[in-house]
Amino acid sequence: MRTTYSKTDIASRHWLVEKMTQANLDACIDGVGNVYGRSQQPGRCVLVGSHSDTQPSGGWLDGALGVIYGLEVARAIAECKQTRHLAVDVISWADEEGSYLGMIGSRSFCNLLDDKEIKAAIGIDGRSLTDALRDCGLINLPLAQYDLQRHIGYLEAHIEQGPFLEKQNKKIGVVTSIVGMRDFEIVFTGQQNHAGTTPMLLRKDAGMALIEFAHDLVHAVGDIAGEKTVWTIGKVELEPGAPSIIPVKAKMLWQFRDPDQSRIEDLQKLTEEKVKVFNETQEVRASLTLLDDSAQATNMDNYFQSKLAESAQSHCPEQWIHMPSGAVHDAQTLSKRMPSAMLFIPSIGGISHSFEEDSHEQDIILGCQVLTDAVANILLDNAKSQ
Amino acid sequence: MRTTYSKTDIASRHWLVEKMTQANLDACIDGVGNVYGRSQQPGRCVLVGSHSDTQPSGGWLDGALGVIYGLEVARAIAECKQTRHLAVDVISWADEEGSYLGMIGSRSFCNLLDDKEIKAAIGIDGRSLTDALRDCGLINLPLAQYDLQRHIGYLEAHIEQGPFLEKQNKKIGVVTSIVGMRDFEIVFTGQQNHAGTTPMLLRKDAGMALIEFAHDLVHAVGDIAGEKTVWTIGKVELEPGAPSIIPVKAKMLWQFRDPDQSRIEDLQKLTEEKVKVFNETQEVRASLTLLDDSAQATNMDNYFQSKLAESAQSHCPEQWIHMPSGAVHDAQTLSKRMPSAMLFIPSIGGISHSFEEDSHEQDIILGCQVLTDAVANILLDNAKSQ
Repeated sequence: MRTTYSKTDIASRHWLVEKMTQANLDACIDGVGNVYGRSQQPGRCVLVGSHSDTQPSGGWLDGALGVIYGLEVARAIAECKQTRHLAVDVISWADEEGSYLGMIGSRSFCNLLDDKEIKAAIGIDGRSLTDALRDCGLINLPLAQYDLQRHIGYLEAHIEQGPFLEKQNKKIGVVTSIVGMRDFEIVFTGQQNHAGTTPMLLRKDAGMALIEFAHDLVHAVGDIAGEKTVWTIGKVELEPGAPSIIPVKAKMLWQFRDPDQSRIEDLQKLTEEKVKVFNETQEVRASLTLLDDSAQATNMDNYFQSKLAESAQSHCPEQWIHMPSGAVHDAQTLSKRMPSAMLFIPSIGGISHSFEEDSHEQDIILGCQVLTDAVANILLDNAKSQ
Repeated sequence: MRTTYSKTDIASRHWLVEKMTQANLDACIDGVGNVYGRSQQPGRCVLVGSHSDTQPSGGWLDGALGVIYGLEVARAIAECKQTRHLAVDVISWADEEGSYLGMIGSRSFCNLLDDKEIKAAIGIDGRSLTDALRDCGLINLPLAQYDLQRHIGYLEAHIEQGPFLEKQNKKIGVVTSIVGMRDFEIVFTGQQNHAGTTPMLLRKDAGMALIEFAHDLVHAVGDIAGEKTVWTIGKVELEPGAPSIIPVKAKMLWQFRDPDQSRIEDLQKLTEEKVKVFNETQEVRASLTLLDDSAQATNMDNYFQSKLAESAQSHCPEQWIHMPSGAVHDAQTLSKRMPSAMLFIPSIGGISHSFEEDSHEQDIILGCQVLTDAVANILLDNAKSQ
């Protein structure tokens, strides 16, 4: 467990600086906790990495896998005569998982993080982000920044965190796009009353309203959903929540994700329309609040995808597949600034965000081989084109 | 606020003993807290009362109105030359509201309370019932008991706690029956997963299962419901309850009430059938637990009803109505042992179990006049038949 800016998180970042330095990278921790190891080779580089913070109940691979792959890619390319002149930068992002804000490291690197956001952020441990950065000795350190003169692009490997590769019996997923996501809260307000003495026709039951609304909404979403659309009601709460009291308030969290940004917009329109029609026809009031629209559906770079695909095809013919990512990743942020792509390896049982998260050792090795060759080939292509 | 066995509850019971004694009743507190004031007149008596404990957020009339009516009925009948020879016993029941068990006083009086139940009961304040009785100095006091040699029957007045009388512009409700009630918990168990990476077809979403099931159930109940059937989902809870996690568990409280006991049985059968069909057709598991079936649909005594109706018709012609009670009451317990009936007065706005609970002063006065005459006429009828 390495939640962002915890003692173990910071200790692991210092450990990583040491490992990067041993691999002849110029390594340091930046002002938000990113560990950045710069290649000493001249010329443009590929940036390779992922995040090393975890969810509170997160497993050992979510994030860390891609960071260690980055380190190993840099070492392997430096060890080989044909590639040792090539430049690989390695990075471990801070707070991808959102213990404070989500994607702090990659957003800071891409100059997409607002000072106001930093000042307002409070962690799941109750500390302000500013206090956490001070406690960790980070607050006055320089910030690593993207540099298009230097960076050809960004490659990130990650466990799939879902069951798709395993079910398809594939070893590598070349990510085509990362889903967009919208989170909402929908609150229904009715009238609290005695559940025995209030006739059905005189009730304004917020709980029943939620059930009717949610049922109608998920069926309507089903009608316009694509193959990769997912939708979730993660939380429902009735107030006051007693057996003999008609609920005055009912709240639900509503989330949908889609690799196609236009469908994300359609799903939001549908949600808004359903709330509008509900308020026009029902006595219970419904209100819709957008909680998070920061993750936009993002296509991965086609050239990078083709390089990952070529490498996968040579290492494990026909055992790889193109697929979208249902989870959000730092590559979403990076792709706003530079060509970016991702590679997935299978998760056993599709389990993630859990201590039980695991992948087979041979899949972990294969993924790193595929990524290394793809990075090397991108750098060789780049050298030829100079 | 006089929750059962709280300091204010016990203080109010001692105050009531004093008032009863001043009204020439032989008054004492019994071993579960009932305040019982026995008439000193010879011959059989009518027992009149209600409960004086309240909900934690209860108002000033729910319960206490019927107790004070009882005291006033006894005083008024004792003051009048034509009726002063008649016997009225007055009672204030303990724990009708269920701070410990529900209907402790009336069930003890009717010999319907099990020792095991008493030993196992824990109050909403965390005290065991036995400790509470000891703290209040009640534990070794004798228990008042029903006595068919003595008691002709039981009459209870109460606020309606609903909007029916006010909406109908009536002043008195003569209760025909008290509803039966069943409380259930329904638990759905699915599989926890990442809400981004788990395709819809591979999900076992306990929350979605609950919404589909609840929607189906309430519509099916609507098809077989009678005019007076009510049904409520008072609580819903999803676990773990986070925006990006597919819920592994979903729980709902399910309650229905009906004045017709055969419909109560039908509604339970329907619920059981829906759970069975769900488990036969879905991957998520549903389990049904009956939490409470103690309140059976109970008809009020016809002769007592007719006496209340006659009295209402003489005090407020055409401004009274026959109606069922949607709430449970001590009269339900008493009717298992002796003829029992109830009278309702209007609740302003139908509000109850709330500090805002109130009734108009003239309605409070009228209710007591109607009850007093009904009690006197029952006793006069009884004297004639001896």
